[in-house]
Amino acid sequence: MMTPETTPAQPGHMNGLDVTAALATIDAIKADSSLGHFQFRARNTWISGGENRSRIRDFYGAGREDDSRSEPFTFTNGEPPVLLGNNEGANPVEFLLHALAGCVTTTFVLHATARGITIEHLSTELEGDLDVQGLLALDESVPAGYEQIRIRMDVKANCSEEELADLIAFTRQHSPVCNTVCRPVPVMLERKLDVTETVRTAV
Amino acid sequence: MMTPETTPAQPGHMNGLDVTAALATIDAIKADSSLGHFQFRARNTWISGGENRSRIRDFYGAGREDDSRSEPFTFTNGEPPVLLGNNEGANPVEFLLHALAGCVTTTFVLHATARGITIEHLSTELEGDLDVQGLLALDESVPAGYEQIRIRMDVKANCSEEELADLIAFTRQHSPVCNTVCRPVPVMLERKLDVTETVRTAV
Repeated sequence: MMTPETTPAQPGHMNGLDVTAALATIDAIKADSSLGHFQFRARNTWISGGENRSRIRDFYGAGREDDSRSEPFTFTNGEPPVLLGNNEGANPVEFLLHALAGCVTTTFVLHATARGITIEHLSTELEGDLDVQGLLALDESVPAGYEQIRIRMDVKANCSEEELADLIAFTRQHSPVCNTVCRPVPVMLERKLDVTETVRTAV
Repeated sequence: MMTPETTPAQPGHMNGLDVTAALATIDAIKADSSLGHFQFRARNTWISGGENRSRIRDFYGAGREDDSRSEPFTFTNGEPPVLLGNNEGANPVEFLLHALAGCVTTTFVLHATARGITIEHLSTELEGDLDVQGLLALDESVPAGYEQIRIRMDVKANCSEEELADLIAFTRQHSPVCNTVCRPVPVMLERKLDVTETVRTAV
Protein backbone atom coordinates (compact mmCIF):
# COMPACT_ATOMS: atom_id res chain seq x y z
CA MET A 1 0.00 0.00 0.00
CA MET A 2 1.38 3.36 -0.99
CA THR A 3 1.06 6.25 1.41
CA PRO A 4 0.29 9.73 0.07
CA GLU A 5 3.31 11.99 0.06
CA THR A 6 1.32 15.19 -0.11
CA THR A 7 -2.04 16.13 1.35
CA PRO A 8 -4.59 18.67 0.11
CA ALA A 9 -4.16 22.01 1.90
CA GLN A 10 -6.78 22.95 4.51
CA PRO A 11 -7.59 26.56 5.49
CA GLY A 12 -5.36 27.73 8.37
CA HIS A 13 -3.25 24.61 7.95
CA MET A 14 0.34 24.28 6.79
CA ASN A 15 2.13 20.96 6.30
CA GLY A 16 -0.99 19.33 7.78
CA LEU A 17 -0.64 21.26 11.04
CA ASP A 18 -3.32 23.62 12.39
CA VAL A 19 -1.25 26.80 12.62
CA THR A 20 -3.77 28.66 14.82
CA ALA A 21 -3.89 25.79 17.32
CA ALA A 22 -0.10 25.50 17.28
CA LEU A 23 0.32 29.20 18.09
CA ALA A 24 -2.31 28.99 20.86
CA THR A 25 -0.45 26.04 22.42
CA ILE A 26 2.86 27.89 22.30
CA ASP A 27 1.29 31.04 23.82
CA ALA A 28 -0.33 29.01 26.63
CA ILE A 29 2.98 27.34 27.55
CA LYS A 30 4.81 30.69 27.36
CA ALA A 31 2.25 32.12 29.84
CA ASP A 32 2.40 29.10 32.18
CA SER A 33 5.47 26.91 31.76
CA SER A 34 3.94 24.15 33.96
CA LEU A 35 1.70 23.32 30.97
CA GLY A 36 4.83 22.05 29.21
CA HIS A 37 5.24 19.13 31.64
CA PHE A 38 4.18 15.80 30.13
CA GLN A 39 4.33 12.28 31.50
CA PHE A 40 4.06 9.43 28.96
CA ARG A 41 3.37 5.81 29.96
CA ALA A 42 3.47 2.24 28.69
CA ARG A 43 2.41 -1.08 30.22
CA ASN A 44 4.03 -4.23 28.90
CA THR A 45 3.35 -7.93 29.49
CA TRP A 46 5.73 -10.76 28.65
CA ILE A 47 4.17 -13.49 26.53
CA SER A 48 6.96 -16.04 25.90
CA GLY A 49 10.63 -15.99 24.90
CA GLY A 50 11.34 -12.73 23.02
CA GLU A 51 7.64 -11.89 22.59
CA ASN A 52 5.93 -9.23 24.70
CA ARG A 53 3.19 -6.68 24.19
CA SER A 54 2.71 -3.04 25.23
CA ARG A 55 -0.47 -1.09 25.79
CA ILE A 56 -0.22 2.69 25.45
CA ARG A 57 -3.14 5.00 26.14
CA ASP A 58 -3.16 7.52 28.98
CA PHE A 59 -0.68 10.33 29.58
CA TYR A 60 -0.51 13.57 31.52
CA GLY A 61 0.15 16.86 29.74
CA ALA A 62 -0.91 20.49 29.38
CA GLY A 63 -2.08 20.45 33.01
CA ARG A 64 -4.40 17.43 32.90
CA GLU A 65 -4.83 13.71 32.29
CA ASP A 66 -5.50 13.14 28.60
CA ASP A 67 -8.77 11.38 27.74
CA SER A 68 -8.65 11.52 23.94
CA ARG A 69 -8.04 7.78 23.42
CA SER A 70 -10.93 5.43 24.10
CA GLU A 71 -8.82 2.35 23.37
CA PRO A 72 -5.12 1.68 23.96
CA PHE A 73 -2.64 1.25 21.13
CA THR A 74 -1.02 -2.19 21.35
CA PHE A 75 2.38 -3.15 19.93
CA THR A 76 4.13 -6.51 19.91
CA ASN A 77 7.88 -6.90 20.27
CA GLY A 78 9.40 -10.05 18.80
CA GLU A 79 12.74 -11.32 17.56
CA PRO A 80 13.86 -12.83 14.24
CA PRO A 81 14.99 -16.50 14.18
CA VAL A 82 18.70 -15.53 14.30
CA LEU A 83 17.88 -13.88 17.67
CA LEU A 84 15.88 -16.91 18.86
CA GLY A 85 12.38 -15.66 17.94
CA ASN A 86 9.73 -16.18 15.26
CA ASN A 87 9.33 -12.59 13.98
CA GLU A 88 6.33 -12.08 16.26
CA GLY A 89 6.95 -8.36 15.75
CA ALA A 90 9.83 -5.98 15.07
CA ASN A 91 12.39 -6.18 17.85
CA PRO A 92 12.92 -3.50 20.52
CA VAL A 93 16.03 -1.94 18.95
CA GLU A 94 14.11 -1.66 15.65
CA PHE A 95 11.18 0.03 17.45
CA LEU A 96 13.72 2.52 18.80
CA LEU A 97 14.67 3.40 15.19
CA HIS A 98 10.95 3.84 14.35
CA ALA A 99 10.58 6.19 17.35
CA LEU A 100 13.67 8.14 16.30
CA ALA A 101 12.59 8.41 12.65
CA GLY A 102 9.14 9.64 13.65
CA CYS A 103 10.41 12.14 16.16
CA VAL A 104 12.95 13.69 13.82
CA THR A 105 10.25 13.90 11.13
CA THR A 106 7.63 15.53 13.37
CA THR A 107 10.17 17.94 14.87
CA PHE A 108 11.27 18.94 11.36
CA VAL A 109 7.64 19.48 10.25
CA LEU A 110 6.84 21.55 13.35
CA HIS A 111 9.79 23.91 13.00
CA ALA A 112 9.48 24.12 9.20
CA THR A 113 5.89 25.29 9.76
CA ALA A 114 7.03 27.81 12.41
CA ARG A 115 9.42 29.22 9.77
CA GLY A 116 6.77 29.31 7.06
CA ILE A 117 8.43 26.57 5.00
CA THR A 118 6.16 24.24 3.01
CA ILE A 119 7.37 20.63 2.77
CA GLU A 120 6.83 18.77 -0.47
CA HIS A 121 8.44 15.47 0.49
CA LEU A 122 10.12 14.11 3.61
CA SER A 123 11.44 10.61 4.18
CA THR A 124 14.26 9.13 6.22
CA GLU A 125 16.43 6.03 6.19
CA LEU A 126 18.03 4.90 9.45
CA GLU A 127 20.84 2.49 10.24
CA GLY A 128 22.06 1.56 13.71
CA ASP A 129 25.13 -0.52 14.56
CA LEU A 130 24.96 -2.84 17.54
CA ASP A 131 27.24 -5.61 18.81
CA VAL A 132 25.24 -8.32 20.60
CA GLN A 133 28.32 -9.30 22.60
CA GLY A 134 27.17 -6.49 24.93
CA LEU A 135 23.65 -7.90 25.40
CA LEU A 136 25.04 -11.41 25.89
CA ALA A 137 27.65 -10.17 28.41
CA LEU A 138 30.39 -11.92 26.42
CA ASP A 139 32.67 -8.86 26.55
CA GLU A 140 32.06 -6.26 29.26
CA SER A 141 34.04 -3.66 27.24
CA VAL A 142 31.34 -3.76 24.52
CA PRO A 143 28.36 -1.48 25.27
CA ALA A 144 24.98 -3.24 25.14
CA GLY A 145 23.35 -0.45 23.13
CA TYR A 146 23.78 1.14 19.73
CA GLU A 147 27.31 2.25 18.85
CA GLN A 148 26.04 4.85 16.38
CA ILE A 149 22.85 5.68 14.51
CA ARG A 150 22.78 7.36 11.10
CA ILE A 151 19.75 9.13 9.64
CA ARG A 152 19.63 10.12 5.98
CA MET A 153 16.86 12.60 5.30
CA ASP A 154 15.40 13.02 1.82
CA VAL A 155 13.60 16.34 1.79
CA LYS A 156 12.10 18.74 -0.72
CA ALA A 157 10.81 22.07 0.60
CA ASN A 158 10.27 25.63 -0.65
CA CYS A 159 13.38 27.16 0.92
CA SER A 160 17.05 27.69 0.17
CA GLU A 161 19.75 25.07 0.72
CA GLU A 162 21.08 27.14 3.63
CA GLU A 163 17.67 27.31 5.33
CA LEU A 164 17.30 23.56 4.86
CA ALA A 165 20.73 22.83 6.39
CA ASP A 166 19.90 25.09 9.34
CA LEU A 167 16.51 23.45 9.85
CA ILE A 168 18.07 19.96 9.82
CA ALA A 169 20.65 20.97 12.44
CA PHE A 170 17.91 22.62 14.54
CA THR A 171 15.79 19.43 14.28
CA ARG A 172 18.65 17.28 15.57
CA GLN A 173 18.97 19.54 18.63
CA HIS A 174 15.23 19.73 19.41
CA SER A 175 13.88 16.25 18.66
CA PRO A 176 12.89 14.62 21.99
CA VAL A 177 13.82 11.06 20.93
CA CYS A 178 17.07 12.18 19.26
CA ASN A 179 17.97 14.11 22.42
CA THR A 180 17.08 11.11 24.62
CA VAL A 181 19.45 8.93 22.58
CA CYS A 182 22.28 11.49 22.30
CA ARG A 183 22.21 12.54 25.95
CA PRO A 184 22.58 10.26 29.01
CA VAL A 185 19.03 9.93 30.41
CA PRO A 186 18.55 8.24 33.82
CA VAL A 187 16.48 5.05 33.72
CA MET A 188 15.34 3.65 37.08
CA LEU A 189 14.49 -0.05 37.03
CA GLU A 190 12.77 -1.16 40.21
CA ARG A 191 10.82 -4.16 41.29
CA LYS A 192 7.13 -3.49 41.85
CA LEU A 193 6.06 -4.62 45.30
CA ASP A 194 2.66 -6.21 45.63
CA VAL A 195 1.09 -3.37 47.61
CA THR A 196 -2.40 -4.85 47.29
CA GLU A 197 -1.23 -8.02 48.98
CA THR A 198 0.53 -6.10 51.75
CA VAL A 199 -2.49 -3.91 52.40
CA ARG A 200 -4.77 -6.95 52.37
CA THR A 201 -2.52 -8.70 54.88
CA ALA A 202 -2.47 -5.62 57.10
CA VAL A 203 -6.28 -5.39 57.08
CA MET B 1 -8.09 -9.63 24.48
CA MET B 2 -6.10 -11.23 27.29
CA THR B 3 -2.62 -12.48 26.54
CA PRO B 4 -1.46 -15.74 28.13
CA GLU B 5 0.92 -15.16 31.01
CA THR B 6 2.40 -18.64 30.88
CA THR B 7 3.08 -20.96 27.96
CA PRO B 8 3.16 -24.77 27.91
CA ALA B 9 6.73 -26.04 28.24
CA GLN B 10 8.39 -27.44 25.10
CA PRO B 11 11.23 -29.98 25.21
CA GLY B 12 14.61 -28.21 25.29
CA HIS B 13 12.84 -24.91 25.89
CA MET B 14 12.85 -22.70 28.98
CA ASN B 15 10.83 -19.50 29.31
CA GLY B 16 9.85 -20.00 25.66
CA LEU B 17 13.48 -19.87 24.49
CA ASP B 18 15.21 -22.73 22.65
CA VAL B 19 18.08 -23.33 25.07
CA THR B 20 20.12 -25.46 22.63
CA ALA B 21 19.86 -22.79 19.91
CA ALA B 22 20.75 -20.07 22.44
CA LEU B 23 23.89 -21.91 23.53
CA ALA B 24 24.88 -22.57 19.88
CA THR B 25 24.52 -18.82 19.11
CA ILE B 26 26.64 -17.86 22.11
CA ASP B 27 29.33 -20.42 21.20
CA ALA B 28 29.43 -19.21 17.59
CA ILE B 29 29.92 -15.57 18.67
CA LYS B 30 32.54 -16.61 21.23
CA ALA B 31 34.45 -18.38 18.43
CA ASP B 32 34.09 -15.47 15.95
CA SER B 33 33.24 -12.12 17.54
CA SER B 34 32.46 -10.58 14.12
CA LEU B 35 29.20 -12.58 14.18
CA GLY B 36 28.06 -10.27 16.99
CA HIS B 37 27.90 -7.23 14.69
CA PHE B 38 24.34 -6.29 13.73
CA GLN B 39 22.96 -3.40 11.71
CA PHE B 40 19.25 -2.62 12.13
CA ARG B 41 17.32 -0.35 9.74
CA ALA B 42 14.08 1.60 9.35
CA ARG B 43 12.61 3.61 6.47
CA ASN B 44 10.08 6.29 7.31
CA THR B 45 7.81 8.48 5.16
CA TRP B 46 6.05 11.61 6.32
CA ILE B 47 2.31 11.63 5.61
CA SER B 48 0.99 14.93 7.03
CA GLY B 49 1.41 16.98 10.22
CA GLY B 50 2.49 14.65 13.04
CA GLU B 51 1.69 11.47 11.08
CA ASN B 52 4.41 9.35 9.50
CA ARG B 53 4.98 5.66 8.85
CA SER B 54 7.98 3.34 9.15
CA ARG B 55 8.74 0.12 7.32
CA ILE B 56 11.11 -2.30 9.04
CA ARG B 57 12.27 -5.52 7.41
CA ASP B 58 15.89 -6.18 6.51
CA PHE B 59 18.90 -6.16 8.81
CA TYR B 60 22.45 -7.47 8.85
CA GLY B 61 23.60 -9.81 11.59
CA ALA B 62 25.46 -13.02 12.39
CA GLY B 63 27.59 -12.50 9.26
CA ARG B 64 24.83 -12.10 6.67
CA GLU B 65 21.81 -10.17 5.43
CA ASP B 66 18.70 -11.57 7.12
CA ASP B 67 15.98 -12.90 4.80
CA SER B 68 13.51 -14.24 7.34
CA ARG B 69 10.84 -11.57 6.76
CA SER B 70 8.90 -11.72 3.50
CA GLU B 71 6.94 -8.55 4.33
CA PRO B 72 7.98 -5.44 6.26
CA PHE B 73 6.47 -4.51 9.60
CA THR B 74 4.79 -1.10 9.36
CA PHE B 75 4.17 1.30 12.25
CA THR B 76 2.42 4.66 12.27
CA ASN B 77 3.49 7.55 14.46
CA GLY B 78 0.82 10.10 15.33
CA GLU B 79 0.09 12.71 17.97
CA PRO B 80 -2.86 13.28 20.29
CA PRO B 81 -5.03 16.41 19.81
CA VAL B 82 -3.22 18.29 22.62
CA LEU B 83 -0.05 17.86 20.52
CA LEU B 84 -1.82 18.92 17.30
CA GLY B 85 -2.64 15.46 15.92
CA ASN B 86 -5.59 13.08 15.62
CA ASN B 87 -4.20 10.01 17.44
CA GLU B 88 -3.16 8.49 14.10
CA GLY B 89 -0.85 6.27 16.18
CA ALA B 90 1.10 6.38 19.42
CA ASN B 91 3.62 9.21 19.36
CA PRO B 92 7.39 8.76 18.97
CA VAL B 93 8.26 9.25 22.66
CA GLU B 94 5.63 6.63 23.54
CA PHE B 95 7.13 4.21 20.98
CA LEU B 96 10.48 4.74 22.76
CA LEU B 97 8.85 3.52 26.00
CA HIS B 98 7.50 0.46 24.15
CA ALA B 99 11.01 -0.27 22.83
CA LEU B 100 12.50 0.14 26.30
CA ALA B 101 9.84 -2.05 27.98
CA GLY B 102 10.34 -4.81 25.42
CA CYS B 103 14.13 -4.71 25.57
CA VAL B 104 14.28 -4.84 29.36
CA THR B 105 11.80 -7.74 29.29
CA THR B 106 13.66 -9.76 26.64
CA THR B 107 17.04 -9.12 28.30
CA PHE B 108 15.60 -10.29 31.64
CA VAL B 109 14.15 -13.46 30.04
CA LEU B 110 17.44 -14.24 28.26
CA HIS B 111 19.62 -13.95 31.34
CA ALA B 112 17.07 -15.64 33.63
CA THR B 113 17.18 -18.58 31.22
CA ALA B 114 21.01 -18.56 31.22
CA ARG B 115 20.84 -18.81 35.02
CA GLY B 116 18.27 -21.63 34.98
CA ILE B 117 15.51 -19.43 36.45
CA THR B 118 11.94 -20.13 35.33
CA ILE B 119 9.71 -17.04 35.03
CA GLU B 120 6.08 -17.34 36.04
CA HIS B 121 5.00 -13.75 35.36
CA LEU B 122 6.74 -10.63 34.05
CA SER B 123 5.16 -7.26 33.36
CA THR B 124 6.40 -3.68 33.47
CA GLU B 125 4.93 -0.21 33.87
CA LEU B 126 6.89 2.73 32.50
CA GLU B 127 6.64 6.48 33.08
CA GLY B 128 8.76 9.12 31.38
CA ASP B 129 8.83 12.84 32.21
CA LEU B 130 9.29 15.30 29.37
CA ASP B 131 8.97 19.08 29.15
CA VAL B 132 7.79 20.16 25.68
CA GLN B 133 9.43 23.57 26.16
CA GLY B 134 12.56 21.78 24.89
CA LEU B 135 10.91 20.54 21.68
CA LEU B 136 9.31 23.94 21.08
CA ALA B 137 12.62 25.76 21.70
CA LEU B 138 10.89 28.03 24.24
CA ASP B 139 13.67 27.58 26.80
CA GLU B 140 17.10 26.43 25.59
CA SER B 141 18.02 25.33 29.15
CA VAL B 142 15.29 22.64 28.99
CA PRO B 143 16.47 19.42 27.28
CA ALA B 144 14.24 18.27 24.42
CA GLY B 145 14.24 14.65 25.56
CA TYR B 146 13.09 12.67 28.59
CA GLU B 147 14.27 14.01 31.95
CA GLN B 148 13.94 10.60 33.58
CA ILE B 149 12.27 7.24 32.86
CA ARG B 150 11.03 4.89 35.59
CA ILE B 151 10.33 1.19 35.05
CA ARG B 152 8.45 -0.83 37.66
CA MET B 153 8.84 -4.55 37.07
CA ASP B 154 6.29 -7.03 38.43
CA VAL B 155 7.98 -10.43 38.38
CA LYS B 156 7.43 -13.88 39.81
CA ALA B 157 10.18 -16.46 39.28
CA ASN B 158 11.53 -19.58 40.96
CA CYS B 159 14.53 -17.96 42.64
CA SER B 160 15.45 -16.13 45.84
CA GLU B 161 14.86 -12.41 46.40
CA GLU B 162 18.64 -11.87 46.20
CA GLU B 163 18.91 -13.65 42.84
CA LEU B 164 15.98 -11.59 41.54
CA ALA B 165 17.54 -8.30 42.68
CA ASP B 166 20.84 -9.29 41.03
CA LEU B 167 19.10 -10.29 37.78
CA ILE B 168 17.21 -6.96 37.64
CA ALA B 169 20.43 -4.98 38.12
CA PHE B 170 22.18 -7.14 35.47
CA THR B 171 19.26 -6.57 33.06
CA ARG B 172 19.54 -2.80 33.44
CA GLN B 173 23.23 -2.99 32.52
CA HIS B 174 22.81 -5.31 29.51
CA SER B 175 19.58 -4.20 27.82
CA PRO B 176 20.49 -2.60 24.46
CA VAL B 177 17.66 -0.02 24.50
CA CYS B 178 18.21 0.82 28.19
CA ASN B 179 21.92 1.27 27.49
CA THR B 180 21.16 3.42 24.40
CA VAL B 181 19.00 5.71 26.56
CA CYS B 182 21.35 5.82 29.61
CA ARG B 183 24.53 6.38 27.59
CA PRO B 184 25.22 9.20 25.10
CA VAL B 185 24.92 7.55 21.66
CA PRO B 186 25.98 9.54 18.57
CA VAL B 187 23.19 10.21 16.08
CA MET B 188 24.22 11.57 12.66
CA LEU B 189 21.48 13.42 10.81
CA GLU B 190 22.42 14.12 7.21
CA ARG B 191 20.60 15.16 4.12
CA LYS B 192 20.33 12.46 1.49
CA LEU B 193 21.63 13.63 -1.87
CA ASP B 194 19.73 12.52 -4.91
CA VAL B 195 22.43 10.23 -6.28
CA THR B 196 20.11 8.72 -8.90
CA GLU B 197 19.51 12.16 -10.35
CA THR B 198 23.22 13.00 -10.35
CA VAL B 199 24.11 9.74 -12.04
CA ARG B 200 21.34 10.20 -14.58
CA THR B 201 22.62 13.69 -15.35
CA ALA B 202 26.18 12.36 -15.71
CA VAL B 203 25.04 9.65 -18.14
